Amino acid sequence: MSENAEAIREICDSIIRRVDRAYVAECGKRNELPKKLWDMWAESGLLSIGLPEEYGGSGGSLSDIVLAMDLLHTEALLLPLAVPNFMSRGPLLKFASEEQKRRYLPPTATGEEFFSFGITEPDAGTNTFKIKTTAIRQPDGTFLLNGGKTYQTAFVESAHCLLVARTQPYDPEDRTKGISLFILDTKLPGISATQMDIGMYLPEKNYTTYFDNVVLPADALVGEEGRGLNILFDSLNSERLLVAAMNVGQADYCINRAAEYAKTRAPFDTPIGAYQSIQHPLARAKTYNESARSMMYLATAKHDRGENIGVEANMVKVLASESFKMAAEIAMTCFGGAGVDVSQDILPFYIAAQNNIVAPVNNQIVLSFIAEKVLGLPKSY
Amino acid sequence: MSENAEAIREICDSIIRRVDRAYVAECGKRNELPKKLWDMWAESGLLSIGLPEEYGGSGGSLSDIVLAMDLLHTEALLLPLAVPNFMSRGPLLKFASEEQKRRYLPPTATGEEFFSFGITEPDAGTNTFKIKTTAIRQPDGTFLLNGGKTYQTAFVESAHCLLVARTQPYDPEDRTKGISLFILDTKLPGISATQMDIGMYLPEKNYTTYFDNVVLPADALVGEEGRGLNILFDSLNSERLLVAAMNVGQADYCINRAAEYAKTRAPFDTPIGAYQSIQHPLARAKTYNESARSMMYLATAKHDRGENIGVEANMVKVLASESFKMAAEIAMTCFGGAGVDVSQDILPFYIAAQNNIVAPVNNQIVLSFIAEKVLGLPKSY
Amino acid sequence: MSENAEAIREICDSIIRRVDRAYVAECGKRNELPKKLWDMWAESGLLSIGLPEEYGGSGGSLSDIVLAMDLLHTEALLLPLAVPNFMSRGPLLKFASEEQKRRYLPPTATGEEFFSFGITEPDAGTNTFKIKTTAIRQPDGTFLLNGGKTYQTAFVESAHCLLVARTQPYDPEDRTKGISLFILDTKLPGISATQMDIGMYLPEKNYTTYFDNVVLPADALVGEEGRGLNILFDSLNSERLLVAAMNVGQADYCINRAAEYAKTRAPFDTPIGAYQSIQHPLARAKTYNESARSMMYLATAKHDRGENIGVEANMVKVLASESFKMAAEIAMTCFGGAGVDVSQDILPFYIAAQNNIVAPVNNQIVLSFIAEKVLGLPKSY
Amino acid sequence: MSENAEAIREICDSIIRRVDRAYVAECGKRNELPKKLWDMWAESGLLSIGLPEEYGGSGGSLSDIVLAMDLLHTEALLLPLAVPNFMSRGPLLKFASEEQKRRYLPPTATGEEFFSFGITEPDAGTNTFKIKTTAIRQPDGTFLLNGGKTYQTAFVESAHCLLVARTQPYDPEDRTKGISLFILDTKLPGISATQMDIGMYLPEKNYTTYFDNVVLPADALVGEEGRGLNILFDSLNSERLLVAAMNVGQADYCINRAAEYAKTRAPFDTPIGAYQSIQHPLARAKTYNESARSMMYLATAKHDRGENIGVEANMVKVLASESFKMAAEIAMTCFGGAGVDVSQDILPFYIAAQNNIVAPVNNQIVLSFIAEKVLGLPKSY
Repeated sequence: MSENAEAIREICDSIIRRVDRAYVAECGKRNELPKKLWDMWAESGLLSIGLPEEYGGSGGSLSDIVLAMDLLHTEALLLPLAVPNFMSRGPLLKFASEEQKRRYLPPTATGEEFFSFGITEPDAGTNTFKIKTTAIRQPDGTFLLNGGKTYQTAFVESAHCLLVARTQPYDPEDRTKGISLFILDTKLPGISATQMDIGMYLPEKNYTTYFDNVVLPADALVGEEGRGLNILFDSLNSERLLVAAMNVGQADYCINRAAEYAKTRAPFDTPIGAYQSIQHPLARAKTYNESARSMMYLATAKHDRGENIGVEANMVKVLASESFKMAAEIAMTCFGGAGVDVSQDILPFYIAAQNNIVAPVNNQIVLSFIAEKVLGLPKSY
Repeated sequence: MSENAEAIREICDSIIRRVDRAYVAECGKRNELPKKLWDMWAESGLLSIGLPEEYGGSGGSLSDIVLAMDLLHTEALLLPLAVPNFMSRGPLLKFASEEQKRRYLPPTATGEEFFSFGITEPDAGTNTFKIKTTAIRQPDGTFLLNGGKTYQTAFVESAHCLLVARTQPYDPEDRTKGISLFILDTKLPGISATQMDIGMYLPEKNYTTYFDNVVLPADALVGEEGRGLNILFDSLNSERLLVAAMNVGQADYCINRAAEYAKTRAPFDTPIGAYQSIQHPLARAKTYNESARSMMYLATAKHDRGENIGVEANMVKVLASESFKMAAEIAMTCFGGAGVDVSQDILPFYIAAQNNIVAPVNNQIVLSFIAEKVLGLPKSY
Repeated sequence: MSENAEAIREICDSIIRRVDRAYVAECGKRNELPKKLWDMWAESGLLSIGLPEEYGGSGGSLSDIVLAMDLLHTEALLLPLAVPNFMSRGPLLKFASEEQKRRYLPPTATGEEFFSFGITEPDAGTNTFKIKTTAIRQPDGTFLLNGGKTYQTAFVESAHCLLVARTQPYDPEDRTKGISLFILDTKLPGISATQMDIGMYLPEKNYTTYFDNVVLPADALVGEEGRGLNILFDSLNSERLLVAAMNVGQADYCINRAAEYAKTRAPFDTPIGAYQSIQHPLARAKTYNESARSMMYLATAKHDRGENIGVEANMVKVLASESFKMAAEIAMTCFGGAGVDVSQDILPFYIAAQNNIVAPVNNQIVLSFIAEKVLGLPKSY
Repeated sequence: MSENAEAIREICDSIIRRVDRAYVAECGKRNELPKKLWDMWAESGLLSIGLPEEYGGSGGSLSDIVLAMDLLHTEALLLPLAVPNFMSRGPLLKFASEEQKRRYLPPTATGEEFFSFGITEPDAGTNTFKIKTTAIRQPDGTFLLNGGKTYQTAFVESAHCLLVARTQPYDPEDRTKGISLFILDTKLPGISATQMDIGMYLPEKNYTTYFDNVVLPADALVGEEGRGLNILFDSLNSERLLVAAMNVGQADYCINRAAEYAKTRAPFDTPIGAYQSIQHPLARAKTYNESARSMMYLATAKHDRGENIGVEANMVKVLASESFKMAAEIAMTCFGGAGVDVSQDILPFYIAAQNNIVAPVNNQIVLSFIAEKVLGLPKSY
């Protein structure tokens, strides 16, 4: 456990005492950001973790953030927006110009602003090399942006978006070349967005965006032109672990809710928690979740020691999403017919758990990665 | 296959040509009855199957209804309301007075009216003996109804409801006594209903109902007083098979949709349908679904020959719901991140499939039944 | 059910009364043919089913054989040798010369002789096109046989073997050409065999064979030269169903044994069969096994009506092997630590069940077949 | 990692270089102790770990032993006998008299002697309270031993056995009273043993033992009379972790063997390791095994810090046995038909993995423990 662990726990406890799940669930139904929760993250300093003091941060490590995510998600105080907020900083800290850092980083610590992420395109999916959105350098140094993205969380609500685009047109002969990273001002002319109907009860909105001859200033470019994917890949392992923390936290929420229900629900007078078909799957889910959590904290600590955790982070992604699914599934079964009653607040987790099996990266491609890197097996796709 | 099979197929084909899934999906999002589809069921005669001609029916067997349900659900032309419509007739045909039959049955064949079902109560769940809604005989022969129900499909939209209530107050010493069956006029004074938020994208509304000193006329009673559960249990096996047909049909819809998607989706240029992690689960789901379907039609035929199918119908309930879940799950995985995009129309099936594991009867209690009846094992609950 | 079903049942009942499982289990431990059981098959006429009367048979259909296999395997009266015995006749009946038929078929009905099968080679596995055993036509019309086979059941004990060999040397450019079928006299000079150590407690021996310049007479050839695989493929669907019958039968044996054990085993005084973690998996295994059995008999009947059952037979292969595995696994768990005590006679089924997932054809390749043929998905291997 | 980890690794590497799996596999087929391996454990000092120097030990912690078990089992250099050897010391160190310690402990470090364990009885199974073997105190202070045990590993080969027996006859009214622990001289008159037929290819023999009026000297008693179970329970958590190490090690062995096979096996010319139906389950097994291993070492370290690990040790027991099973199962599937060929040396692990699900303690009872202790659910058995 990191030295800050105790402080993080106290902050989270304080938030948990002041915001209840019902509020966040209600935001989820309306796809609205839980402003109250977001503000507490900001005020308590959680948002400033991982950012150096010179940019308004409070220092701290990935372990600290992961711990906070775990604790708050265990109470289902979801704040998925926190992930792109943390994720966007890594690339900026490492690759942005000093001016960009001074301008864009501090507001992410105060919570005044956050970055949305613009990477996914319908035809590309897991294979980012296939994106077709282009930002072509013009003679005057600006870039002309055309194309569009999908699953853009909080795009309209965010002032800026970290955008991945081709600075060379898509070339089927060599798809890897010419992908760059930009800070996009979301209010520029030529940008439009339509809200998607994501059936996940998420406390945030998702958008499909369209870029029609948007003119990006030259200083929108982050890092070296054509090196956008390398910049992003650099922060993938941290993302795996942040997302894992959300999964193990929510898994525990499901297990706890189901266990409470199973103690009192007794259609045949015996509490259903005394039936092994309810009790054993719950205990198994708890066991697997603790195992995923163990490996998650080991990997996070290793990351904070500066070691490579490519394999561990990917394994933890699979483990945490699968234990969340296991937990959400037995919770649904435990609630029986009441599981689909939205007011019971179990259904959102069942849907999220399945989604987290395939997002933000599909477990299948992660397994292929592990098969190749760890077991030396040939490529399967 | 029954002798009517060919005719049923033609009717269903004709409906499939005229109503598309998009319409029903849209109704599902708004929880509205797909009137167009319902009317076609009525006009084509599907609603009149299983009812003797003297009550406006066209004869026909359970096999015919099951076939129609299977065929239409394979195209995801959901009409869940059809189930209570068919289910309500069995008890009426067998136990209602001639007058009740002549008054209530014909409109169920024309589609002008349908019966909602009032049985589930929050504390009772699977154990119907625990219901607490009472309909106490008054000195003038009427019954005074108090209590309430939950998960009442289309209660407000239906003129009548087949209601299960205690005609003797709940007695913890002997909970089995005094349960009776009524035809409830849903517009009687003292009845209120609030819509539930069922997150299933169902083309119908569900309600929680409240009965506050509702006066039921004496002739609302169906069959013998105190014999309500026996009357209902009589039709449970047919319900198992109708529900199974909806499951195997929707399973096929999921498999077909996923297979189509897998043929064209190719983020790494090879269609994902060529990956065994997609292809094999799809083929397994198809295999298990065909197996469930085989047993379903064998059981239906056996039922129509007048033989007891208590064991088979229950087995088929488990099989069909599990193959639906298998199918919906791999379909979600196949669609990847797009699975939770409601506009892709896969998510509703994923949710329905899990629900059908526990509804209208929980597979766990069905497995207990099989364990006891077939394997001679002791009661486990 | 076929018209002979009642007669088959009586024969099997009579055998079951006279041979007990302990005898066959003991043969299994010693890898010896259960001679007593084989003789009863022969005497009772079971071995003559499916063979025309002119060759010593009694007529009858695949349904009859499948029923007998199912009934006898439900009591674990294993006779795996029956499968090659039945399988070898199909090709001979259809493709052998009249002389070959008169000479070789009658002894398979009396049980005096049986055919072993020679097809599997280590490097070829599932892909028969890759076999390298050659039988090259000599100027005098004889064939010179070289190579060897593996997993040859009862080779040494059988007088003849139905052998698949290349009549043209293996050509990597076109591996499909020149595969032929022979009746091999197992006692010819140049043939040697070593017993394999198959850890399955099978009541039969398996061999690796070596053919070193064995001279096959010209009339050893069955059917047309170079058409060997077509001849064999013709009988694959029947084999799928025979093997399925062995699987569903043994699955029931495991379920019944486990259920009996679960009724009396009571380390905490309650019989473990009252625990849902034992009871529900047993009931599920029973449910899935009945479903597999339903589809098996439907497919068998369809086959006997002369219809193509390529898809159904393959689906049934998967279903029956998986329900056997499900049954054997919960039986092992039910027996707890006693499961590995060979004297409890459960372990052999646990091993056989896993083997039957991959043999005689791997479920994975069957799933690929279903994916391609039924769902239209691309080849995955 | 403990401070001795590097030294332990070197010792294990040296053993791995000098003993190959083939030798141990051959011992397994003959149920013989791999003497060569045992001697290396002794000579290298591995057997002396965990024993204070005054009794001939070299100090060291549970972490050291677990690491050694993990490393050696990853190469399938099985030495199951090491477990009772280590397990027997805990109770002796804590509860035996100084004289007993000086007499019995040193030979367990040199490998000259080892303790067998006598606890399991057929009717008791998981519920040790139900054992019926009695050791009744005689007027002269000796104990008269009657009864018998089962699954007694290496009883005949060991000089002494740590035996659990009732010092008060079995009383159905209070089964918990009067269970004591003894050091049994296995050569005493009245003791007989018959070898069991355990189908696990274990490099050791297992026995059923019979005690017929065996006279135990007074000083055979370990610790306080009637406190035998408390003495034993004290060491259960260590046993859970030792056994877990054997499981994760063997899981890796299976995964590595299967991965090697999958790289070269290519019936359709592509290595089967490129098929996702092989590759993904292998990668999943590896992922889950690493997760189990992570939690195992965390729990071991916590144990060595003197903290209670009742929950973690039990969770790790479940996790490690299930990842071993997952690994062994996909290995069998990967080897296809060759899996049951004993000479391929995969089958023994498939059988062991299933056994380890239920032994030395059944995962189901472990799950019940977790459900009660961690989730607060009611007793289910």
